Amino acid sequence: MIAEILSTGDEVLLGDIVDTNAAWLCRKLKEMGIPASRITTVGDDEAKICEAIKAIAQRSDICLVTGGLGPTQDDLTAQACAGAAGKPLEKHPVAFESMAAFFRERGWALTPENEKQSVLPQGAGVLENHWGTAPGFFITITKCCFFFMPGVPSEMKGMFQDQVRPELARRCGSNGPIAVARLMVFGLPESQVGARLSDFHNRFPGLSLGFRARFPLIEVKLVQPPEAKTQTAASDLAAAKAWAISCLAPRVVSENGLTLEEEVGQMLSTAGQTLSIAESCTGGLISNLITDVPGASAYFLFSAVTYANTAKTGVLGVTEETLVAHGAVHEKTAEEMAKGARVTGGSDWAVSTTGIAGPSGGTADKPVGTVCIGVAGPSGVTARRFVLDTGDRQKNKQLFAAAALEMLRRKLSESA
Amino acid sequence: MIAEILSTGDEVLLGDIVDTNAAWLCRKLKEMGIPASRITTVGDDEAKICEAIKAIAQRSDICLVTGGLGPTQDDLTAQACAGAAGKPLEKHPVAFESMAAFFRERGWALTPENEKQSVLPQGAGVLENHWGTAPGFFITITKCCFFFMPGVPSEMKGMFQDQVRPELARRCGSNGPIAVARLMVFGLPESQVGARLSDFHNRFPGLSLGFRARFPLIEVKLVQPPEAKTQTAASDLAAAKAWAISCLAPRVVSENGLTLEEEVGQMLSTAGQTLSIAESCTGGLISNLITDVPGASAYFLFSAVTYANTAKTGVLGVTEETLVAHGAVHEKTAEEMAKGARVTGGSDWAVSTTGIAGPSGGTADKPVGTVCIGVAGPSGVTARRFVLDTGDRQKNKQLFAAAALEMLRRKLSESA
Repeated sequence: MIAEILSTGDEVLLGDIVDTNAAWLCRKLKEMGIPASRITTVGDDEAKICEAIKAIAQRSDICLVTGGLGPTQDDLTAQACAGAAGKPLEKHPVAFESMAAFFRERGWALTPENEKQSVLPQGAGVLENHWGTAPGFFITITKCCFFFMPGVPSEMKGMFQDQVRPELARRCGSNGPIAVARLMVFGLPESQVGARLSDFHNRFPGLSLGFRARFPLIEVKLVQPPEAKTQTAASDLAAAKAWAISCLAPRVVSENGLTLEEEVGQMLSTAGQTLSIAESCTGGLISNLITDVPGASAYFLFSAVTYANTAKTGVLGVTEETLVAHGAVHEKTAEEMAKGARVTGGSDWAVSTTGIAGPSGGTADKPVGTVCIGVAGPSGVTARRFVLDTGDRQKNKQLFAAAALEMLRRKLSESA
Repeated sequence: MIAEILSTGDEVLLGDIVDTNAAWLCRKLKEMGIPASRITTVGDDEAKICEAIKAIAQRSDICLVTGGLGPTQDDLTAQACAGAAGKPLEKHPVAFESMAAFFRERGWALTPENEKQSVLPQGAGVLENHWGTAPGFFITITKCCFFFMPGVPSEMKGMFQDQVRPELARRCGSNGPIAVARLMVFGLPESQVGARLSDFHNRFPGLSLGFRARFPLIEVKLVQPPEAKTQTAASDLAAAKAWAISCLAPRVVSENGLTLEEEVGQMLSTAGQTLSIAESCTGGLISNLITDVPGASAYFLFSAVTYANTAKTGVLGVTEETLVAHGAVHEKTAEEMAKGARVTGGSDWAVSTTGIAGPSGGTADKPVGTVCIGVAGPSGVTARRFVLDTGDRQKNKQLFAAAALEMLRRKLSESA
């Protein structure tokens, strides 16, 4: 079973957008056990799209196509497909009705330009679009089945999950949805994560293993392809997950694919406890991450971003003595910041950061990348120093924030 | 002049990484006036790479290839190229010496695997790599000149800028670097930005126009291709920029391609003034953006993220009366938050946000997307209400933050 991706659109070839659709579809195909063999991108040019379709029809079994189904004159994919298939275009009643329903539900008026979107190659099957106006379609040319989807990522993803994947699974003799386990790892480079799991394929030959860098975390994905289900026990995935966690311990920060801020949020929600934050070098990033999680207002109360020392003393109650004796970047300062944030915010927990994100401001003693992190909780306060330099200010902030959330996560875990 | 991109690498086809190299190269080609006609991606498979090179050699004049030049056994691009060109592989002294120098400078030992990297198709020209270990090369097959570069983005970009672009410019009869003007626009959808500038090509036929969504801003890029320099006066780009600004006024937030946080940072630095921030619904995002800019500690003093009302009253001095009479999401509350942050931080300026990012928490009166923004400065405080809903919590936070920074930018501009 050979599968390919065909992306269309001038905006990709002009470099105006990065083609994230192709990467997403590649991941989905891989999860189904049919990795893509090629990606081709051509512009909004009927002859070039037609030529690409003809070449793919000769060499592959499945092709996922995105883009060019919209209402404007540079949307040419249906014409190009009809040309490659040697079929006429015709108004497709099912596609038209699906589109008309989408408009009716919203009280919108159908324009002639929209009606064009239901004109498809003769013999095509319709892929309904519940996420936008352009219907998709599928058609076999020579030996290859082409699935045409919109280029808008949300519409493409909805259509793929809802309609294309089941059809693909049927054609590939697949028996139901795949099973996936996701681990999030922090504090190991990707090469080491791979090395620690190098025995995976020997131990679990029916499963597949993938890595994805989601800086500063690495996502480890264990996949049981649909065809593996008949061969291996369902317990294999659970066994593989347990084995991977033991290999990666204590660097697994979520056993369910959650980010650190989601994991910490769940722990606080479960415990019915609250959080305040005191940030210096992370500059608001930790607060921003925590509040990216819907429902964060249930446990997040307050954060102080204290770049100026006067704010550290005035708002957080850090003492002048500590700042004079140790400087702003010190474990003692981090401790006082965390304690102060906990008191000012009136929360059960507080986490603090003070350090040097760079590119300037480092010294021989405290180089760029130095960060002191404090955690204050019901049973006291602790602080630690790390040196984590990536050579990039924003990446350093991300590393510092992750290190702080991880230190908080461990403390929450100990107290649970 | 027909140009193509060929990306190689299993990690792209497995969806483990998004191919940002191709998008970057497409932009560079477009800036040189030779837009890419196609992107092809194949895996680490010698036969497939060879086949792709042969097909491209028949139909294009230039091809930029990335990936597969490293030291390991899945790096097969040089072999595939030799096969397609019908040339033997041989150790290339210039490539070897360039690589050896890179290792010598760092005191590293050359391994046999590294030596393999200097084995190139006979007749290839060397592209030196000052950013990593793998030399690149260029070679003409049939009518097409192929430039082979590493897949590591930093190495590829360095090699392209330093060596490939001048060679391409020479071949295309280009005479020197392009000139570019960048405008950043906030508050207009991309379709409207395009519509307002629809007369551009009539007015400035020698220049090209591009758009790039950098949510929530849109970057408008005016480019004078090298070949246009002889035909049009250098003043054309300046005239086009002035015309575009007038068409887009007052939505241009930077005339130099800066983000809002960079623009605000420059204005504060120039004025020698300082900033504090009070955030509720943006949850630390504004502070995070402001502190992403190197040198922000010169003007940023303090931020309070006050999710809980007790933090709004305790830290910022928002009055109980205001909260009871108007609620947390109100212009009056935003005003008191800005005033309080200015006093607590001891700064010249302060900006505040209070609103509902969603997905829940909205009411008929104050739906999700409602945000009140306050700005306090040397001559007083003002606040405004907006309703900006994208249907996504994190995007709403980004919109709110941009609206707040834009309101601050205008006040800074008025007072300058």
